[in-house]
Amino acid sequence: MLSLAILSSLLCLTLHTCHGGKVLVYPVEGSHWVNMNILIEGLHSKGHDITVLRSDKSWYIKENSSSYNTITVPVSASLDEEFIAKIVTETINIQRGHSSLFVFVTLLVEMFKKLKEAHVTLKEMIVNILENPELVKSLQDCHYDILLTDPCWGGGTVLAHYLHLPLVYNVRWLPVGEGHFAVAPSPVSYIPLTGSGFSDKMTFIERVKNMLYFGAVVIQDRLTLRPVYQGVCEKYLSPHSDFYMLMQSADLWLMRGDFVFEFPRPTMPNVVYMGGFQCKPAKPLPQDLEDFVQSSGEHGVILMSLGTFVSQLPSDITEEIAAAFAELPQKVIWKYTGERPSTLGNNTLLVDWMPQNDILGHPKIKLFVAHGGTNGVQEALYHGVPVVGIPLFFDQYDNLLRLKVRGGATILSVATLEKGTLLQGLQEVLHEPSYRENMQRLSRLHRDQPMKPLDRALFWIEFVMRHKGAAHLRTESYKMPWYAYHSVDVVLFLVAVLSLIVLIILAVIRYLLRLCNKIKNKVD
Amino acid sequence: MLSLAILSSLLCLTLHTCHGGKVLVYPVEGSHWVNMNILIEGLHSKGHDITVLRSDKSWYIKENSSSYNTITVPVSASLDEEFIAKIVTETINIQRGHSSLFVFVTLLVEMFKKLKEAHVTLKEMIVNILENPELVKSLQDCHYDILLTDPCWGGGTVLAHYLHLPLVYNVRWLPVGEGHFAVAPSPVSYIPLTGSGFSDKMTFIERVKNMLYFGAVVIQDRLTLRPVYQGVCEKYLSPHSDFYMLMQSADLWLMRGDFVFEFPRPTMPNVVYMGGFQCKPAKPLPQDLEDFVQSSGEHGVILMSLGTFVSQLPSDITEEIAAAFAELPQKVIWKYTGERPSTLGNNTLLVDWMPQNDILGHPKIKLFVAHGGTNGVQEALYHGVPVVGIPLFFDQYDNLLRLKVRGGATILSVATLEKGTLLQGLQEVLHEPSYRENMQRLSRLHRDQPMKPLDRALFWIEFVMRHKGAAHLRTESYKMPWYAYHSVDVVLFLVAVLSLIVLIILAVIRYLLRLCNKIKNKVD
Repeated sequence: MLSLAILSSLLCLTLHTCHGGKVLVYPVEGSHWVNMNILIEGLHSKGHDITVLRSDKSWYIKENSSSYNTITVPVSASLDEEFIAKIVTETINIQRGHSSLFVFVTLLVEMFKKLKEAHVTLKEMIVNILENPELVKSLQDCHYDILLTDPCWGGGTVLAHYLHLPLVYNVRWLPVGEGHFAVAPSPVSYIPLTGSGFSDKMTFIERVKNMLYFGAVVIQDRLTLRPVYQGVCEKYLSPHSDFYMLMQSADLWLMRGDFVFEFPRPTMPNVVYMGGFQCKPAKPLPQDLEDFVQSSGEHGVILMSLGTFVSQLPSDITEEIAAAFAELPQKVIWKYTGERPSTLGNNTLLVDWMPQNDILGHPKIKLFVAHGGTNGVQEALYHGVPVVGIPLFFDQYDNLLRLKVRGGATILSVATLEKGTLLQGLQEVLHEPSYRENMQRLSRLHRDQPMKPLDRALFWIEFVMRHKGAAHLRTESYKMPWYAYHSVDVVLFLVAVLSLIVLIILAVIRYLLRLCNKIKNKVD
Repeated sequence: MLSLAILSSLLCLTLHTCHGGKVLVYPVEGSHWVNMNILIEGLHSKGHDITVLRSDKSWYIKENSSSYNTITVPVSASLDEEFIAKIVTETINIQRGHSSLFVFVTLLVEMFKKLKEAHVTLKEMIVNILENPELVKSLQDCHYDILLTDPCWGGGTVLAHYLHLPLVYNVRWLPVGEGHFAVAPSPVSYIPLTGSGFSDKMTFIERVKNMLYFGAVVIQDRLTLRPVYQGVCEKYLSPHSDFYMLMQSADLWLMRGDFVFEFPRPTMPNVVYMGGFQCKPAKPLPQDLEDFVQSSGEHGVILMSLGTFVSQLPSDITEEIAAAFAELPQKVIWKYTGERPSTLGNNTLLVDWMPQNDILGHPKIKLFVAHGGTNGVQEALYHGVPVVGIPLFFDQYDNLLRLKVRGGATILSVATLEKGTLLQGLQEVLHEPSYRENMQRLSRLHRDQPMKPLDRALFWIEFVMRHKGAAHLRTESYKMPWYAYHSVDVVLFLVAVLSLIVLIILAVIRYLLRLCNKIKNKVD
């Protein structure tokens, strides 16, 4: 552990000699890291020095690269591909042959169990940092300009407050749910909860369900997720600190979305939208892939990928998928690392990696078969490619829904996926021109911005560095107790005053009536 | 009237031959027009053709200029300088020698009387347009790309809906109050009503007052202001149309503010902040003015202006002001058109116009004595000049308050203004360095933007023209009845269901208890 602290001090010394700023990054693994790394490369290209905190069980975040240095923290466990694979299998099993209410409730419970498990596992890293006085000292001595974190897990938030650093989020998720719900007013009457599967136009019954779902999420959060970090805050920051409030107090929220993708909703001055910041115009494909793509002729190419986390599905499902692809005249590129399906057609190329952005931007691309991760959906949107969605878990259904309601995608259930239904879905999106037209309209809207999303994000990160925070963009609201924020105390006070006035008036009337009666009786 | 329609058709023909877009502008007089004209000049420089609707009583909007054409609509009356002068005198009289509660209530009532009078007067123009079938036909035939309006009065909103045009607001005020309150969630627990004189940090009593003030504004709006245009909507649009909803449905809100000026608060995807869009680096002054400024030596210069509308105050007040200025070693430039005060010092230059932006940007400027109009406050902020504020009416106190709470201004009451108090205020701001330091800090924050506010505004106006609206940035919320928006129906339904369940359980328990008793009795 001592060597770790020495390494950190050395890093710090190197950084001090440089003219750019110093950025401490507390990232999240997997596809979240893919995103974060784009910001890191952007910051590096602008002359800033970046230090990334990673655990020694990191499976995606590499040690020291040309654009950043790392501090590696020993932990006993991490979330790995096996953890994710288990979630996929369980989710599919729950969905198979059960009623929709059973599926909904079970998935909700399972999601929270898994989230709790993840939070408990990942909490270890921030505890191990704070329990190491030499590492803490060297982090303090480095005088970083900001801490940049993905607040999906709470460690980065805690560390920023511990080190008193301006805090910038690269965010879509918080421990307590979708990022907006913690920072901006979110009326559940037209803002669907992630996982609800609703759009911004809800029927009365859907609004009732959305409200119930909101209640369930709040209860689960208070009972299981928030306490994981609350204990860390109380122990290492202050016994009176509140994790939720600390989380809300970030200077800048770089939101991985925009309003071509998201349903329009209230937002905040310190929220900057950078949806699609990872998207780029397509580069030429490697020759073998280009040859394969060109061999598709006028029929064009279909791309299938289930993202960074999931490389394979249960074999009965992959057999059905392969069989459906085999029936098509198109060529298919399928990111797949499992056993070769027996039904695989000659038109289908299995790859364990491919340049997704370049294929989606290729003129021959006709269709993207996707699981609905934010990155893939944003890339489809950027390149205007229609989507057949096969959502697996978390926000994937909701991401795809945002394309579907705008007429750019269709969604199929993985649990009931068969050759026939898949083929029907594929052919519908391939042959009904409105899907492509709608995606291209969304693409035009998305690209029509005064500034590229990545440049905007980098500008605002540097803004926070220049001004040592962005307090003037942060509302007072997060410091208020809920009853004050919602004016419950004011309304109760006004009702009490009004009641008192009415009572006094009634008492006076009653007294006057009695007096009248008395006088009347006397007169009588 | 016929000639007006022919003129409009001719305009339209001219416009059809051009490659830029076609913009119909429905502006507001006075300082609002100064703002609007900057947008018009920007749009003109980008090759768009602009047609401005004005009344034949317009006292600020000139007929046809190099950057726009006009259609002049005959009306019987308008709001002129006399109307404004009357408001100033009445406001000062109300404030003099009365208790603060009396002043608050009387000013509130007077403000609404004047607003109602203004709305009724200005409504005539939209009615006269819609009652002229030839003019309407020619406006329709022109196929404008957008209607750009200042929605402070409701005419432009009605016309945009009548002509089915995408609607862009250059906005700070609506007929129903400050613009944000109609478009974004506005919790009154930390968002002070304009006129309340509160900041975003309120005590319990201030929150109670803010809530009461909110109630008063809502009632006044429903009873007096909104009905003025509701009648027009029902007559000319549809019997079922709702003016408030039409007003909320604008595609784009170009808000004349930003969060260096405004207190941070929730906002919306279709709100674009362009505060300070009228500010420019200073140009050299005319030689005589430059000589006067340079003659101030190390003491520097004070600028005093009460804005576009107000050129003079009651003479007893101006005598006090002149006497206070005369005591200072600084030179003073005073925009003033009334009788020369007898107490005027040699150091004070009276002018009926001056290049305000260039003086505020001059290195010799020490202080700005301002009434607190949005334009002047934004210019002081842009150039980092500290302010002594003498607010007269409407939002001016609140504008100045935003500088005061950030330590950049002090505020004096015009009603109790005397040489002594003014002198004290001037000297405090001149000699306490924190005022200038704070204004310069705000200036740095304001100028540190990825894009100039005017360029941002023009980009988004053109965005709406390119995409024929911006429906994807507009929430669903404004179409919902208030009880649905606030989930009142959902909560009542859930309470009813819960109550029913509890009642059924209680009934079953009661039945079971009785059954038990019966059995027990039988057994006994």
